[in-house]
Amino acid sequence: MRPAALTLLVGLAGTSVALAQTPASQTPAAQAPAASGPREVPAKTVPVPDTVSPAMQALIAQPLRKNWDAPPTTPEGWKALSDSFATLAAPQIGPMAERLRVSVAPTVIDGVRAYTITPSDIPAANRDRIAVHVHGGCYVLNPREAALPEAMMLAGFGRITVVAVDYRMPPEAYYPAALDDAMTVLKAVMRDHAPKKVAVFGSSAGGALTLAMMLRSKAENLPMPGAIAPGTPMADTTKRGDTFETNARLDNVLVSPDGFCDAATRFYAAGHDLKDPILSPVYGDVGGFPPTILTTGTRDLLLSNTVRMHRALRRAGVEAVLQVYEGQSHAQFYRDDRVPETQEAFGEIAAFFDRHLDR
Amino acid sequence: MRPAALTLLVGLAGTSVALAQTPASQTPAAQAPAASGPREVPAKTVPVPDTVSPAMQALIAQPLRKNWDAPPTTPEGWKALSDSFATLAAPQIGPMAERLRVSVAPTVIDGVRAYTITPSDIPAANRDRIAVHVHGGCYVLNPREAALPEAMMLAGFGRITVVAVDYRMPPEAYYPAALDDAMTVLKAVMRDHAPKKVAVFGSSAGGALTLAMMLRSKAENLPMPGAIAPGTPMADTTKRGDTFETNARLDNVLVSPDGFCDAATRFYAAGHDLKDPILSPVYGDVGGFPPTILTTGTRDLLLSNTVRMHRALRRAGVEAVLQVYEGQSHAQFYRDDRVPETQEAFGEIAAFFDRHLDR
Repeated sequence: MRPAALTLLVGLAGTSVALAQTPASQTPAAQAPAASGPREVPAKTVPVPDTVSPAMQALIAQPLRKNWDAPPTTPEGWKALSDSFATLAAPQIGPMAERLRVSVAPTVIDGVRAYTITPSDIPAANRDRIAVHVHGGCYVLNPREAALPEAMMLAGFGRITVVAVDYRMPPEAYYPAALDDAMTVLKAVMRDHAPKKVAVFGSSAGGALTLAMMLRSKAENLPMPGAIAPGTPMADTTKRGDTFETNARLDNVLVSPDGFCDAATRFYAAGHDLKDPILSPVYGDVGGFPPTILTTGTRDLLLSNTVRMHRALRRAGVEAVLQVYEGQSHAQFYRDDRVPETQEAFGEIAAFFDRHLDR
Repeated sequence: MRPAALTLLVGLAGTSVALAQTPASQTPAAQAPAASGPREVPAKTVPVPDTVSPAMQALIAQPLRKNWDAPPTTPEGWKALSDSFATLAAPQIGPMAERLRVSVAPTVIDGVRAYTITPSDIPAANRDRIAVHVHGGCYVLNPREAALPEAMMLAGFGRITVVAVDYRMPPEAYYPAALDDAMTVLKAVMRDHAPKKVAVFGSSAGGALTLAMMLRSKAENLPMPGAIAPGTPMADTTKRGDTFETNARLDNVLVSPDGFCDAATRFYAAGHDLKDPILSPVYGDVGGFPPTILTTGTRDLLLSNTVRMHRALRRAGVEAVLQVYEGQSHAQFYRDDRVPETQEAFGEIAAFFDRHLDR
């Protein structure tokens, strides 16, 4: 590529045409190294968009997560924080199960803690199907009952049986314990179900685990499931990606690439290379992956992670579709089962599974 | 929805779990009106991402468009600016046609100026197919040769014949002249081709026109084409949408919702209500639309326009897919045919057309 020729053409297409642009010969981009040209963005006050439901507006209006930049610094501190999530979640599970018309039962599958979530009614097409769920929480948070909400939402909105993996987390166990536990459950499920009747899903760390499970399955010559749904996956834990910067302080859930989630991930990785595709699946060989539906929001700090993963899958020839929701921060599509956009997102995932899983 | 219960649950799911969150009873979002809660985002310096090709990095590194906030103020001023785009484009067309292996011929179709773009070789599957193109430029810019680049890229990368509409623009003619001209060409094309062998595409104002053509076709009981590809459509010219704010000053093409493109659109609309679905198709009844592929970028000021349009189509049951490219500003996916991401975006559009058009 000749930079001069490129710059001449740059003024051409569509609304991108030069509006009294700098003449080509003086365009800084033509002379500066490709990696230069940072953008100075002035401070701004961004209103809550009126283009989402009132319930979603309430989530978007929440302030930045408190203590996003003050994570625990000891194993005991992480454990106390993580345990507090389960304590907070526990009393919510009953009412949520009632609303979603599902039942939740703890179980142990080949030594791995899990939950079986069963809809009160299951349409004929879903009778023999099952979805394996891996929860989010930066590999450290959301044990026990806190692992359940997203799993319950798919079971409820999709009327499909879900097995939610309550995988081991630090300080009980470190990398790759989460993946090992998820694989144990997936293999057990596949003993009882045809692979193409099985789906795998999860968001954030659970999205990365969903993808890592496919990489591990390929490495072990295991069959692929029928479809997967990684939501806003932590597909690049090395913090590369444009929206780590552009959506910083806009995303009220993760807030910053240098916040608690990065700290938690490093606590789990315990020195393992973060660029290993098992921890950053955007760098993996994703050829042969099953049909994939990805979900994110316009304010998501991991919007770039998600669209880069989408592109990686498409470049590898995988049938992969993307849903991006207006104004949502990280994983805000499963913050509350009563928000219309939550029902919409899981409706899309359930329809995608229905289209691709064998009956 | 009970706000208190909502807030309790908000702490639950995935990584969204409360990390030392404000107790539910004190959460501001629970008490504030839904539309409150603006986000204060500090000034930031955003580097050029290293997660795109070097050629795309050069486009992203370009400074904000000069005079983005100083549009012409007279009809003569707009005409001079618009004409200058054609002058700038003219010498680029030959080399581009050579690279893309297409030929370009001006024509007049039922009184409307247009160009026929013919690939040097056309695969058998595309012999009877044709794509109608409507260019971008905020309804005022990109006459004559400046209307061609996107049309040529699809013809070149997709090896399909394209008819590009050089529709009338102010001060020659005002709303709805652009749509009228596009419809004239579409109807002429459909006289010679089975509707399901016809595609329609265009970006920015051309994306909105593509969608408006479907609304008009429905109103006139005309058949739908086989597929459409609105790129980063000006789907909401009333300036509603979150990324009008979040991507302001990050998008180096449109820059701001209060810049030249808004001024141009108002010049074209000439007092017509901008919320009319013909000018803001996100408010239209899109049921029955043909399969649709939408394209945008993470820095695009119209990212919200695009994802809201995607959701509107999906909610109406339309088969609609979304591609979002890392780091790209408005319509940057067709700035230069030599950029790898350009080839990727048009490869996706061409494959989508191939999947949905009759042979």
